Amino acid sequence: MTLNEMGAAAQKAYRYLSNLGQTHKNGALCAVAGALTAHTASILEANTADIKNACEKGMKDSLVDRLRLTPQRIEAMAEGLRQIVELADPVGEIVESSLRPNGLEICKKRVPLGVIGIIYESRPNVTADAFGLCFKTGNAVILKGGSDAICSNTAIVQVIRSALAGYAGQNGLDPALLSDSISLIEDTSRETTKTFMRLNTYVDVLIPRGGAGLIRTVVENSTIPVIETGTGNCHVYVDEFANIDMAVKIIENAKTQRTGVCNACESLVIHRNILKEALPPICTMLKGHNVQIRGDKEALSVVPDLAPATEEDFGTEYLDLILSVKTVGSLDEAIEHINTFSTGHSETIVTQNYDHARRFLNEIDSAAVYVNASTRFTDGFEFGFGAEIGISTQKLHARGPMGLKELTTTKYVIYGNGQIRQ
Amino acid sequence: MTLNEMGAAAQKAYRYLSNLGQTHKNGALCAVAGALTAHTASILEANTADIKNACEKGMKDSLVDRLRLTPQRIEAMAEGLRQIVELADPVGEIVESSLRPNGLEICKKRVPLGVIGIIYESRPNVTADAFGLCFKTGNAVILKGGSDAICSNTAIVQVIRSALAGYAGQNGLDPALLSDSISLIEDTSRETTKTFMRLNTYVDVLIPRGGAGLIRTVVENSTIPVIETGTGNCHVYVDEFANIDMAVKIIENAKTQRTGVCNACESLVIHRNILKEALPPICTMLKGHNVQIRGDKEALSVVPDLAPATEEDFGTEYLDLILSVKTVGSLDEAIEHINTFSTGHSETIVTQNYDHARRFLNEIDSAAVYVNASTRFTDGFEFGFGAEIGISTQKLHARGPMGLKELTTTKYVIYGNGQIRQ
Repeated sequence: MTLNEMGAAAQKAYRYLSNLGQTHKNGALCAVAGALTAHTASILEANTADIKNACEKGMKDSLVDRLRLTPQRIEAMAEGLRQIVELADPVGEIVESSLRPNGLEICKKRVPLGVIGIIYESRPNVTADAFGLCFKTGNAVILKGGSDAICSNTAIVQVIRSALAGYAGQNGLDPALLSDSISLIEDTSRETTKTFMRLNTYVDVLIPRGGAGLIRTVVENSTIPVIETGTGNCHVYVDEFANIDMAVKIIENAKTQRTGVCNACESLVIHRNILKEALPPICTMLKGHNVQIRGDKEALSVVPDLAPATEEDFGTEYLDLILSVKTVGSLDEAIEHINTFSTGHSETIVTQNYDHARRFLNEIDSAAVYVNASTRFTDGFEFGFGAEIGISTQKLHARGPMGLKELTTTKYVIYGNGQIRQ
Repeated sequence: MTLNEMGAAAQKAYRYLSNLGQTHKNGALCAVAGALTAHTASILEANTADIKNACEKGMKDSLVDRLRLTPQRIEAMAEGLRQIVELADPVGEIVESSLRPNGLEICKKRVPLGVIGIIYESRPNVTADAFGLCFKTGNAVILKGGSDAICSNTAIVQVIRSALAGYAGQNGLDPALLSDSISLIEDTSRETTKTFMRLNTYVDVLIPRGGAGLIRTVVENSTIPVIETGTGNCHVYVDEFANIDMAVKIIENAKTQRTGVCNACESLVIHRNILKEALPPICTMLKGHNVQIRGDKEALSVVPDLAPATEEDFGTEYLDLILSVKTVGSLDEAIEHINTFSTGHSETIVTQNYDHARRFLNEIDSAAVYVNASTRFTDGFEFGFGAEIGISTQKLHARGPMGLKELTTTKYVIYGNGQIRQ
């Protein structure tokens, strides 16, 4: 099957799906969840082949672990789909409406985006998860996973497609159209991926999920509209009017609760007037978590055994037990520093000062800005969306955690009785 | 000034502007409107140079007319800015909010997009218009106009920048930051334009305004997120249950009221069962407007003196007094034909049948879908937005006419009192 054929089939599937209604969409998702559990053995067999290849190639243990499926992880994939079933379907909502003086009734209606392309790396659970979110919102999805997970992804997509066809057959729906709502690009070569990124005729939006390198490649090469996700060089700013105990707890949580995630803190910005009092207890806490601290000159003058920070440190998303420290002389300087080095993901100020809190919220140019809370809350589940397809760090269409609503667009539906323009 | 310097200056200007408040933004817009009128003579002088160059190059009269400014047209530009002043500022609106179980208050707040790049062709009035809409919503704008209008655009931007600096000086604001909210790329070479389209570090969104060729170039070359605007291969479908008088009036309006615009009708789709009765009066009316009609075989069998339509005709946006006619045997066939050939702009069904109207609205995949009204209403002013920066034919971020709201994004503002993630 060529990419064009796959795209055309996905377009047809999306048109079919977009008018299917919640009952069938949820019924089919439940059928897929059941099928994933039922086919645990065959999925694990495929996954074993991926793991074997990965080990032979000498893949790092932490990456092999991401790749590995277990009966529990497959059950979690199924359970994830059942949770998506429980969520409200945003499709069909009238977002705005107006009655014009000439009698036209104009309604802005929420509809599926269409065909969504997702390019992702080695976690095979993304396959079921991304499908579930797209299907729930009436979108067809074309997946391009990493070559490391190709056997697992192929097996999972086969199970999903045949469960969809089975549900369709039992419920008077079209099996081919329903199963074409998910497809996997099995050729993981760079050339095919580049062609995929230019399939504007059939694909409405491309969402890369993975590391900074993957995202950069997609942004540079795609002619399809892209939603950039993920990279997070997140800052905690300890203001001169901070509650120091609170600052210690927030930094501990933001830096150490989980280090490899995009909403973890990578840099501490601290006001000169609180430096002597606040930095020692912060460093003591961090050292207890084995965090390497890289400070600027002023930080080193207070806690001399820190490693020195370079300019490059301030622009680095470590995703590791490392933290940079920057000392500032004013809120203005803090805002300027953060807006310069941040990736626009999540930043927090710790302060008891009303005006400083307000200025930070207004002037920091990031998807999520906090007062007195951990950056780790930037997450679709923590925000109460019940799901998440990724965290957008761009400004177009979606910004911050993306739930079901962000997988929809709108169209204008206009009711007339013969109106013509004057 | 390099593009990077221009981008950095625009970023600073946007940060300044985004917290400026309505009073100053509106005050500055009024000052600019006044300055445009006051500097009519110098703008006309620059425009005369453009017109002279264009005539020497042998530019078509209709294009020369688009390029030409008059005292009236300059006054209309100023008046356009004053109208923008009267509109409500969408910035600062809390779009959604929630109180989470852990006490976090999460607000989704409307904020400016940032730095907007606009690439456009020969109409110099776009310069003031685009500036006004961007400035009103707290965005900085970098303009790249056509080489034909370079003298006019340079003169207009100079007037705007010095009016902004003047307003700033009189009102305790920063003159440099305020005037950097608009800049013009004076080097109109392809190389510079390509570099501009990859200025992701500083530009948040790129909006091309112009013909299909310009838009394709931007989509293919930009790494900045793009909002595609404009191309409209719009259809009128005359259903078997149409009121024929209404159909004639709607087609007359959609095809002939203005032909060179994106929401004009380019193709008539007509049901076989109404063909003999409806096509002759439709053709008589169209011939009265000198419209060339290109029909399929069935249409020609009813009105033999039509020109024959090829497959290519159905995919063509004529922007001229030409109309293609396609005969279909069912609503399904009509929907399939339109979804295949349409550019996703505007389509209308003429029918008295409730189910057909509903199915057309649901199943046609375009930005604006109508029942019993002319496609010519797809327009920011007709929709009641009071302004329009373009009409989006893509699904991401904005779809259909874009007003002030579409020039904003949102950010999450989160109020806590020490929350950490469990």
